[in-house]
Amino acid sequence: MALISPSRRLRRTPFSDGVEAAGVKAYTVYNHMLLPTVFDSVEADYHHLKKHVQIWDVACERQVEIKGPDAARLMQMLTPRDLRRMQIGQCLYVPIVDETGGMLNDPVAVKLAEDHWWISIADSDLLYWVNAVAHGWRLDVLVDEPDVSPLAVQGPKAEALMARLFGPRVREIGFFRYEKLAFQGRDLVVARSGYSKQGGFEIYVDGSDLGMPLWQALMAAGEDLQVRAGCPNLIERIEGGLLSYGNDMTDDNTPHECGLGRFCNTSTAIGCIGRDALLRVAKEGPVQQIRAIAIGGEPVGCCDRWWPILAGGKRVGRISSAAWSPDFRTNVAIGMVRMTHWDAGTKLEIETPDGLRPAIVQEKFWN
Amino acid sequence: MALISPSRRLRRTPFSDGVEAAGVKAYTVYNHMLLPTVFDSVEADYHHLKKHVQIWDVACERQVEIKGPDAARLMQMLTPRDLRRMQIGQCLYVPIVDETGGMLNDPVAVKLAEDHWWISIADSDLLYWVNAVAHGWRLDVLVDEPDVSPLAVQGPKAEALMARLFGPRVREIGFFRYEKLAFQGRDLVVARSGYSKQGGFEIYVDGSDLGMPLWQALMAAGEDLQVRAGCPNLIERIEGGLLSYGNDMTDDNTPHECGLGRFCNTSTAIGCIGRDALLRVAKEGPVQQIRAIAIGGEPVGCCDRWWPILAGGKRVGRISSAAWSPDFRTNVAIGMVRMTHWDAGTKLEIETPDGLRPAIVQEKFWN
Repeated sequence: MALISPSRRLRRTPFSDGVEAAGVKAYTVYNHMLLPTVFDSVEADYHHLKKHVQIWDVACERQVEIKGPDAARLMQMLTPRDLRRMQIGQCLYVPIVDETGGMLNDPVAVKLAEDHWWISIADSDLLYWVNAVAHGWRLDVLVDEPDVSPLAVQGPKAEALMARLFGPRVREIGFFRYEKLAFQGRDLVVARSGYSKQGGFEIYVDGSDLGMPLWQALMAAGEDLQVRAGCPNLIERIEGGLLSYGNDMTDDNTPHECGLGRFCNTSTAIGCIGRDALLRVAKEGPVQQIRAIAIGGEPVGCCDRWWPILAGGKRVGRISSAAWSPDFRTNVAIGMVRMTHWDAGTKLEIETPDGLRPAIVQEKFWN
Repeated sequence: MALISPSRRLRRTPFSDGVEAAGVKAYTVYNHMLLPTVFDSVEADYHHLKKHVQIWDVACERQVEIKGPDAARLMQMLTPRDLRRMQIGQCLYVPIVDETGGMLNDPVAVKLAEDHWWISIADSDLLYWVNAVAHGWRLDVLVDEPDVSPLAVQGPKAEALMARLFGPRVREIGFFRYEKLAFQGRDLVVARSGYSKQGGFEIYVDGSDLGMPLWQALMAAGEDLQVRAGCPNLIERIEGGLLSYGNDMTDDNTPHECGLGRFCNTSTAIGCIGRDALLRVAKEGPVQQIRAIAIGGEPVGCCDRWWPILAGGKRVGRISSAAWSPDFRTNVAIGMVRMTHWDAGTKLEIETPDGLRPAIVQEKFWN
């Protein structure tokens, strides 16, 4: 692995001091920000995440803030998911597509008020899209990136830790719901969500000055729970089928190809961009789709480019994420496979950097 | 320095194999792509660049392609620079701003035909902005990211090397002009441009399959010129006052603050987005502006966050890029300074991680 050259352009976060003190070993760059990827080792981080509780600097999930009388209309223009029944206090996973139905981002929308929303984004400058849509359609909204940085608390002991700091009300928060809870006298949005299948919360830290105090308070409160710094874990997210925008899907893919068709209510999400294209896709169905794929043999190396999926020597798809799973004793992978070969049990071959490997389409993801 | 975790999301380029074979030591991430930053050392790379010729993988300067009857109109909407007299065969540096005049990108526009343009972008997803503007204004254009990857040939011997491969016509190409020249039977746009002050060219490699053949042909043709792999050099670009979007300016800054006011023809660039705000700025002048700043003392460390600029203990600006210059025997830096303190010769103090340093505003950049 090569080094990463620091520069202001790869922005630090309100939690970077904590991350460095915890001995971060590697980063990726996400929304022009540093996102830690390894503390101990990917495998040691994985075991710890599944047993204890970790604090994650996910400030790189930047917020696109929409405020104003046309905010709800703009939000519905942005996504094919029907938002009419969405309540204040709810977060929703919302695919965002261009006019041809190609995925631009797969963020979480947070409804703060009818006229006030945050979009907690994956790795693309969605702000540019939202701002230009608002401008082009002359909508009465303000679109901006506020000083709000998510901090995730993930793992089986997350609820116990959070309750110590925020009180018993955290236990009542439903999945993809939030409450406003006080820390040092300021109300923060605390949602039950996060990029793992181990359960946990995301705290939307509203004001960079609160970053390190909150980080330290969580570390102090969780010492006996073996809390430590962590980060989204490659192995765990593949086991759980959590997609990564830019890895597993790009703007070439429709939500239906990504297995996100259930979030596309194209007949009721009136006015959404990409509706015509997605109505057509919904009618005909996608011709390729995301699948869980087990790859045989020794632990695979790093999937830093798409690996071709072959059947009888013919290309029928691509692997976009792969890792050895210590718990499932196989290489777990995410791939996009053509419909001719996407049925569970189908035998495939994967062209990895160290040669062809046998692989099998799974019924579902592992976790 | 920490490591960088490879993943498909941090895209490789058509030249990555060559970059790796040349022993790249560090990367940054730019437009979701790997951009090399160090081969030998930043200082050794700098000396070599100023004496010989280097091949740079700048595929991360992605192209936004605009095609169709409304292409020229859309281009003029995107930038306050007056494009009416721009000719086919010309490249222009075009600030791109939002409706408030905030910088979104500072790319180079390449005019291929009245109805066909490329925008060779700095580090932000300008595609999202351009596509949504086209959509919101119902323009007759196609907006896409083509498979076009710039390869730069930079340094005093660049022309000699290029002439060997592309023939004597390269010598006739004017600054920020291009010719279409053949390589392996295919016509490529070859422009006299690049992100250094040492002179050179950028080849817009149209088709990834041509990437490594071109890389190897250049390396072979330039052996006696001491050609080697290189990359944009931190020291050289600061000496030359070449700004970096995300480092030296963000969407908070107007072109005027960045010293790019001469590219804003707000009275003639009819229909450009941000015109009203920039007319106002042009009338009143900016209250802070980019300056060359010499920082005293030992070689400074890496400027990975803005360093406050102080005068009499009061904050009057920020340093965004800094490096020790072996040729000028001082720390060269780029800063944004308030008008009260931006005159050449003004003495300032810089709050660096290892303490306060004296600094002086320069008349102009070093190169």
